[in-house]
Amino acid sequence: MIIIGEKLNSTLKAVRPAIAAYDAAAIQALAKAQAEAGAAYIDVNAGMFHEDEAERLCWLVQTVQEVTDLPLSLDSPNAKAMEAALQVAKGTVMLNSITDEKDRFEAVLPLAVQYKAKIVALCMDDTGMPETAEERFAIAERLIAKLTAAGIPEDDIYIDPLVRPVSTGPHYGVAAIETIRRVKSAYPDVHIACGLSNISYGIPCRKLVNQAFLVAAMAAGMDGAILDPLDKKMMSLIAAAEALLGIDEYCMDYLEKYRDGLIEA
Amino acid sequence: MIIIGEKLNSTLKAVRPAIAAYDAAAIQALAKAQAEAGAAYIDVNAGMFHEDEAERLCWLVQTVQEVTDLPLSLDSPNAKAMEAALQVAKGTVMLNSITDEKDRFEAVLPLAVQYKAKIVALCMDDTGMPETAEERFAIAERLIAKLTAAGIPEDDIYIDPLVRPVSTGPHYGVAAIETIRRVKSAYPDVHIACGLSNISYGIPCRKLVNQAFLVAAMAAGMDGAILDPLDKKMMSLIAAAEALLGIDEYCMDYLEKYRDGLIEA
Repeated sequence: MIIIGEKLNSTLKAVRPAIAAYDAAAIQALAKAQAEAGAAYIDVNAGMFHEDEAERLCWLVQTVQEVTDLPLSLDSPNAKAMEAALQVAKGTVMLNSITDEKDRFEAVLPLAVQYKAKIVALCMDDTGMPETAEERFAIAERLIAKLTAAGIPEDDIYIDPLVRPVSTGPHYGVAAIETIRRVKSAYPDVHIACGLSNISYGIPCRKLVNQAFLVAAMAAGMDGAILDPLDKKMMSLIAAAEALLGIDEYCMDYLEKYRDGLIEA
Repeated sequence: MIIIGEKLNSTLKAVRPAIAAYDAAAIQALAKAQAEAGAAYIDVNAGMFHEDEAERLCWLVQTVQEVTDLPLSLDSPNAKAMEAALQVAKGTVMLNSITDEKDRFEAVLPLAVQYKAKIVALCMDDTGMPETAEERFAIAERLIAKLTAAGIPEDDIYIDPLVRPVSTGPHYGVAAIETIRRVKSAYPDVHIACGLSNISYGIPCRKLVNQAFLVAAMAAGMDGAILDPLDKKMMSLIAAAEALLGIDEYCMDYLEKYRDGLIEA
């Protein structure tokens, strides 16, 4: 599983004050902890600071890169903020995200091409939020076609199926899971980068529903997710699901994690 | 989910002494607890008592039926023991199980027909334990064809995909999950009664792998399982998965269970 660590996000109440105060030590501690816990990318988001998002995103990039060589995921709908951050970011960068909304697509695509970035493609277009798996897959197909036509390799594309809460629509869980299955079946080289936690919005004991969604999505082929790598139970369940699904042959990785005290039952 | 409570099983070290000692109070306490926790069937197994399995199975049936009206699942490969227990059992009974092994099929089928029993059909035949989903599905198809030809309705048939440990074969998890998907897709009226815990044999923190398997199998269409309804975390995850998969529309049942203190995060 390709884990995109979600902690450095200005929408999180616990993290926002550290960004507001330019508290480098707090940010760096969270970056290092996520790297040690197994993140492949560190997501950075300053979207709650509307007036100076670009400046704060650049500060996040530079602050995090002082303590880890992991690639960053620049999390913003704002191409201007992304571009500023791309200019200070080192090495490989992931853009999170592009959509099939005309303006956003045209603004973000040139950045992805110029910086040879990995790119999260969210299943959304100008007609609004998709309801069904069919709609999501149609948007994914269009996005993959347009991104590859622009020279972006399939291996650099990460589809986000756009997860909506099951509390607002009973079909949204299955729609996301089926989108993942179809994308991975039709485009084996394309990856998934699924934001998980939206699924449980408005429900008590959200973690339980997130855990169920994680496993069901992995069984459908999900190979990447935006989540909290410091959630030991979630990381344990990823290891268990990889053993169950034969991704981790003969449970070798699971057993090693168990010996290292990383598995929480 | 149709839950077949697995606790009254002579192979369980904690339960076997109660069967050995004819400890009715202990057996009845476990039967009642499983019924209260949401079991739809109470499985009874006296298979470890080779010499007097039939007599002990009959005692289990009568002892359990003194405290609950739930239907019983007679868990034995031995048609003689099943027949003795069928003669003392009240109401609907489930036979656990028939296979496509010639001798076992011919011994158990007449009992299912005569007693109009529900029947667990295990994907196994005289060629040995199946390896792939294809082999399992082929056996399931033959069993369903022969059982329905004998007059047993599809709704009374519960396919057990025959779960083997992923520690001994990395493909066994996916094989079981895909068998479930194919059976429910081809025969929507046929049910699944999947024994879960074999999947994690030989692995530490088995519950974690069992949890992952439960969710992945439910996402593939599993509508019944043989498990421990007293495992609150497992029962919580079933409720969460039903909400996730839209089986529990708008999470109404999940929310009710939460209010009743039955959800453990």
